Amino acid sequence: MKIAVLGTGAVGTTIASKLIELGHEVMIGSRSKTNEKAIKFVNKFDTKATNGTFEEAAFFGEIVFNCIKGEFAIEALKSAEKGIRNKILIDISIPVNTRNGAPLSLIPELCNTNSLGEEIQKNFPDTKVVKTLNTMWNTLMISPSMLQNGDHTNFICGNDEEAKDKVKNLLKEIGWLEETILDLGDIVGSRGTEAIVLLWLRIWGATIGTFSLKVVN
Amino acid sequence: MKIAVLGTGAVGTTIASKLIELGHEVMIGSRSKTNEKAIKFVNKFDTKATNGTFEEAAFFGEIVFNCIKGEFAIEALKSAEKGIRNKILIDISIPVNTRNGAPLSLIPELCNTNSLGEEIQKNFPDTKVVKTLNTMWNTLMISPSMLQNGDHTNFICGNDEEAKDKVKNLLKEIGWLEETILDLGDIVGSRGTEAIVLLWLRIWGATIGTFSLKVVN
Repeated sequence: MKIAVLGTGAVGTTIASKLIELGHEVMIGSRSKTNEKAIKFVNKFDTKATNGTFEEAAFFGEIVFNCIKGEFAIEALKSAEKGIRNKILIDISIPVNTRNGAPLSLIPELCNTNSLGEEIQKNFPDTKVVKTLNTMWNTLMISPSMLQNGDHTNFICGNDEEAKDKVKNLLKEIGWLEETILDLGDIVGSRGTEAIVLLWLRIWGATIGTFSLKVVN
Repeated sequence: MKIAVLGTGAVGTTIASKLIELGHEVMIGSRSKTNEKAIKFVNKFDTKATNGTFEEAAFFGEIVFNCIKGEFAIEALKSAEKGIRNKILIDISIPVNTRNGAPLSLIPELCNTNSLGEEIQKNFPDTKVVKTLNTMWNTLMISPSMLQNGDHTNFICGNDEEAKDKVKNLLKEIGWLEETILDLGDIVGSRGTEAIVLLWLRIWGATIGTFSLKVVN
């Protein structure tokens, strides 16, 4: 499949690497086509990887991953608006307020009674936003089996059932066990999963090594 | 031990029942000494259970549980201010904004960059606030073994190490396994554990039966 990965940070390149490994064609999108991180990444691979602007990548992908830093996500997606129209946007971004210093907090307008997932869906009503993978370390996103043979929870939410089914299939291709993908309903569920970052950082400070959350029942 | 449980709702009476079962003397605190729920509760037990005002209960207890609804907690604790001075206050309360309707949200001033746990600690600097048990169903708080033989996580945080150690011992007496009690550091950790309610309600809607969260690593 042709897949766009918007964002050249650790999340974007980790996701892109895995998708290329699985045989997909990936275009990395960034603000500028001459983005050094994107070019460096693409040069590591053969023709399966290319790079372009956010808009070029969005047009290229049948599915688009949003791995842009939360505070820039809406603005960056606006520059790719026509490209993401009617497509599935897998949103992994967290609306961290980098202006507020430590301890880390969320952007006030994008938490509690709102979320980045919802805000993206409101701004791009023709795009099918599916929030997932945003509650864990980068490497766990693409290697769930490195913890407890993959027996921990990946939350998913979004308004379009068909879009969620397609994303679930892609998650299974990546290595997620079907029974560990927990569907929280519509995109409003992002309020809960994005807020996990406040807890996540505390668990990170209190434990040693890679961890994740599991819903037990 | 003499223990005060402030609040006559499901959380308060559940906690109080367990403490009485364990042999502790419990005074239930409420706004008025003639609170019907408190009297009804006390009448079910022998002399191990009594009831009084928030202040009377706070004076009675060597340890005080805050099981008051989040939006009324600070005000109610102010009426018991002298009673809770220099004592451990185990805060189970969540600052749910009941005025905002569905979907449930937190009180804006008590989330993200603040929390009820911190706000209580700021208002009562001589009290040792320990936040715990606030991320699960009432019955799980006192019967952790009903799920996975107790193998799920109970977060704890607070500024006073000695106070946290005492609370951990009480948790173990209730039935919590030592390795399942995860210390998240100071009371600022409440931001993360209180925000879980946003996720919790979504998981509740998506799953069947009792559940809890487990940190896996």
